[in-house]
Amino acid sequence: MTESTHLTHLDADGRARMIDVGHKAETSRVAVASGRFVTTRKVLTLVRADNLPKADVLATARIAGISAAKKTSELIPLCHQVPLSSVKIDFRLGEDTIEIEASAKTRGQTGVEMEALTAVTIAGLTLHDMVKAVDPGATLTDVRLDSKSGGKRGHWTRGD
Amino acid sequence: MTESTHLTHLDADGRARMIDVGHKAETSRVAVASGRFVTTRKVLTLVRADNLPKADVLATARIAGISAAKKTSELIPLCHQVPLSSVKIDFRLGEDTIEIEASAKTRGQTGVEMEALTAVTIAGLTLHDMVKAVDPGATLTDVRLDSKSGGKRGHWTRGD
Amino acid sequence: MTESTHLTHLDADGRARMIDVGHKAETSRVAVASGRFVTTRKVLTLVRADNLPKADVLATARIAGISAAKKTSELIPLCHQVPLSSVKIDFRLGEDTIEIEASAKTRGQTGVEMEALTAVTIAGLTLHDMVKAVDPGATLTDVRLDSKSGGKRGHWTRGD
Amino acid sequence: MTESTHLTHLDADGRARMIDVGHKAETSRVAVASGRFVTTRKVLTLVRADNLPKADVLATARIAGISAAKKTSELIPLCHQVPLSSVKIDFRLGEDTIEIEASAKTRGQTGVEMEALTAVTIAGLTLHDMVKAVDPGATLTDVRLDSKSGGKRGHWTRGD
Amino acid sequence: MTESTHLTHLDADGRARMIDVGHKAETSRVAVASGRFVTTRKVLTLVRADNLPKADVLATARIAGISAAKKTSELIPLCHQVPLSSVKIDFRLGEDTIEIEASAKTRGQTGVEMEALTAVTIAGLTLHDMVKAVDPGATLTDVRLDSKSGGKRGHWTRGD
Amino acid sequence: MTESTHLTHLDADGRARMIDVGHKAETSRVAVASGRFVTTRKVLTLVRADNLPKADVLATARIAGISAAKKTSELIPLCHQVPLSSVKIDFRLGEDTIEIEASAKTRGQTGVEMEALTAVTIAGLTLHDMVKAVDPGATLTDVRLDSKSGGKRGHWTRGD
Repeated sequence: MTESTHLTHLDADGRARMIDVGHKAETSRVAVASGRFVTTRKVLTLVRADNLPKADVLATARIAGISAAKKTSELIPLCHQVPLSSVKIDFRLGEDTIEIEASAKTRGQTGVEMEALTAVTIAGLTLHDMVKAVDPGATLTDVRLDSKSGGKRGHWTRGD
Repeated sequence: MTESTHLTHLDADGRARMIDVGHKAETSRVAVASGRFVTTRKVLTLVRADNLPKADVLATARIAGISAAKKTSELIPLCHQVPLSSVKIDFRLGEDTIEIEASAKTRGQTGVEMEALTAVTIAGLTLHDMVKAVDPGATLTDVRLDSKSGGKRGHWTRGD
Repeated sequence: MTESTHLTHLDADGRARMIDVGHKAETSRVAVASGRFVTTRKVLTLVRADNLPKADVLATARIAGISAAKKTSELIPLCHQVPLSSVKIDFRLGEDTIEIEASAKTRGQTGVEMEALTAVTIAGLTLHDMVKAVDPGATLTDVRLDSKSGGKRGHWTRGD
Repeated sequence: MTESTHLTHLDADGRARMIDVGHKAETSRVAVASGRFVTTRKVLTLVRADNLPKADVLATARIAGISAAKKTSELIPLCHQVPLSSVKIDFRLGEDTIEIEASAKTRGQTGVEMEALTAVTIAGLTLHDMVKAVDPGATLTDVRLDSKSGGKRGHWTRGD
Repeated sequence: MTESTHLTHLDADGRARMIDVGHKAETSRVAVASGRFVTTRKVLTLVRADNLPKADVLATARIAGISAAKKTSELIPLCHQVPLSSVKIDFRLGEDTIEIEASAKTRGQTGVEMEALTAVTIAGLTLHDMVKAVDPGATLTDVRLDSKSGGKRGHWTRGD
Repeated sequence: MTESTHLTHLDADGRARMIDVGHKAETSRVAVASGRFVTTRKVLTLVRADNLPKADVLATARIAGISAAKKTSELIPLCHQVPLSSVKIDFRLGEDTIEIEASAKTRGQTGVEMEALTAVTIAGLTLHDMVKAVDPGATLTDVRLDSKSGGKRGHWTRGD
């Protein structure tokens, strides 16, 4: 992937714009993003109850993340409206952390990095909301793109 | 501040609910949250152009964060609808980082932690959107509550 | 139409996801749904005034239903975002009932059943809102899909 | 409760308006609504898996209903914007039916009947979305207000 | 009414913010705004059919304007979220013009000028949408505040 | 361009509908709209500070207009959902006026006139919001379509 040398969302005068993607090819595009919710062991014990029939914690965060991915262009001012063909969110529970991974897919003229990142962050903030009475100090950290494919610039993987 | 020992957004059967705040006192409530956008020196050089008359990068992220704070109850499923009396977002530019701080205020029956956190994360994701053609590897990290005041549990400051 | 034997919106672990429609063919798709708003003769007398130049009852319910059809993917968490090529809502007034029928069309990779059903229910709830001071006991009933066409599974008609 | 003899959302010329509630007293208001989702025994067997650790069906419908209650004034054109102090949704599984009950509370100048009804219908439509590949003929029926309290007209219970 | 000498939505550094209204008194506030939709005699002949039982033109524009008033804080970035106690829109048909007047009311800490202006403009744009196949050159003009009352600065009327 | 002789958004009974565009060709479509914000010399002096590093006035209005263009189908009841490939807003400062011009582009089955007009009006109302403490009498005027291209009816330019 070749990177740009300027901020593409600004015109020559530095003014914000929604860049023109009308000339770009429609291709299948996938993006994967992740983040880590850092809290306490006590919270993890309570959340693990979600593997029992009882608790809705992870389901609530998952639905929030999926719904938010569909709202990305309302939240990020210069994002294009992208109809997603799929969104998926996974959680991996650690001792005092919850790893969040989201993937988004579309067939279109522009990528879905922001959709995957939005799914991760809103899922993470929803976890925060649900545990904040127990741990107000929880942190959402390392929210970032892991990989993307599709489009002129081709495949990109973190660390390559 | 005393902390809860259970997840208050779940009922006795573990089912999600919007908890009843109808009995709580209306008090002035303030929350401050922060996060850090980690990118490259090159991006910071481009963003600093925002101190010149030309560029809209920080203004776009600020407006996105303020607008998102007002949408918090649409994004976080169990959040109450809180009319904010004020939202403010500040950026501090480092060598290869942008520190983001947001404060939210209301007079009401429930706190505005999630509003301040939502402002920080959407401002951060908007920065990501604007620089991703130059630095697809940028990371939003350490998103957390710094302090809150108002309500029965009183003042809370990180690290106290 | 062949029916599925499992809940397609859940993955193998039972977790909610927005299913991947990226491989599906783009075809013309139509769905028709209906419901019945059951109220009192007195209300129907008041609503029939809508055939006179004066009253906005049915027009308000119609606009609400059309607007809601366009918001379906915001309301139903696992629905795909579908740009509708047409939405149409008809009312048929009985003695103490209003029959509601909605049709939705698109050209895309997924059906528009939920869009037609959403149009019917929100039109029905809007009727409820407008008559509730006169008849708080009104009921919206028999909300269901009548037919759909397009897509791999072909045509489906209720009762076939 | 005394009932009105005219449609209060229309002015003297029959034109729609958002009626003025500025003079009404702020009181605690509660509304309970219900509906019934009628499907097949096979679907109920699949949904009951939700009592196992695996499935997100009811959690997804519950979150959808709660979120929709908060959007009521966006969906029903003449509804006032009401900040809810609580929303709760319960499901009761039968042989081939799912009973849906929602309660909404606020302290304000206008009732929350429409919020409770919106929670029921969107929870019901979300169930429809999740089972429609197995049972496209499912029906949402008997959506109605069960009781309400608060406000000038006092308590109302269905059947009184 | 005394007027400000600086732009109150900017802080001392010129940065946008949602100004703090937490200290302001809650008073009854009313704002009236108006605008004029200028089109052709032919369009007015078609719209006047709205006085017959048949046409939904003005009802559609009225519902759009009322709905938009409730969305003002989503559209205007620095507007506070204001629960409206009433919105009303009137049209006056001329030879080739439609005069639009909207009033908005609330009891709160900030005025509702922007809500009234938003109702007028979206009602006007909806008229444009409905007549544009006949008259693509229609113009929405003279959109302005006519009067406002409530709040520290007291009553203001255009032309005083 | 040939013009219609009837209101295409109404059916034969005069009822509102979202017209069927499913049969229309997908073509590149562009629309340009403009309007004029009329205020005082004093306000223009304050806004011109936006050419200095300090002020966010025009950036805020520009972001509001771009965001609103993406929300057009939520605001205008019978508008189709159109994914925009580009939105651009320009301001030209006069002595006591700000000229606003917006262009919108898509590739689709229906035009983007309403999107360009919505961008202009919401940018204009945002200017109003930001200057209203200094000039409550500001007016948004001459909001109109300047040109459009694409679609069966071909190119249209105001005044041709």
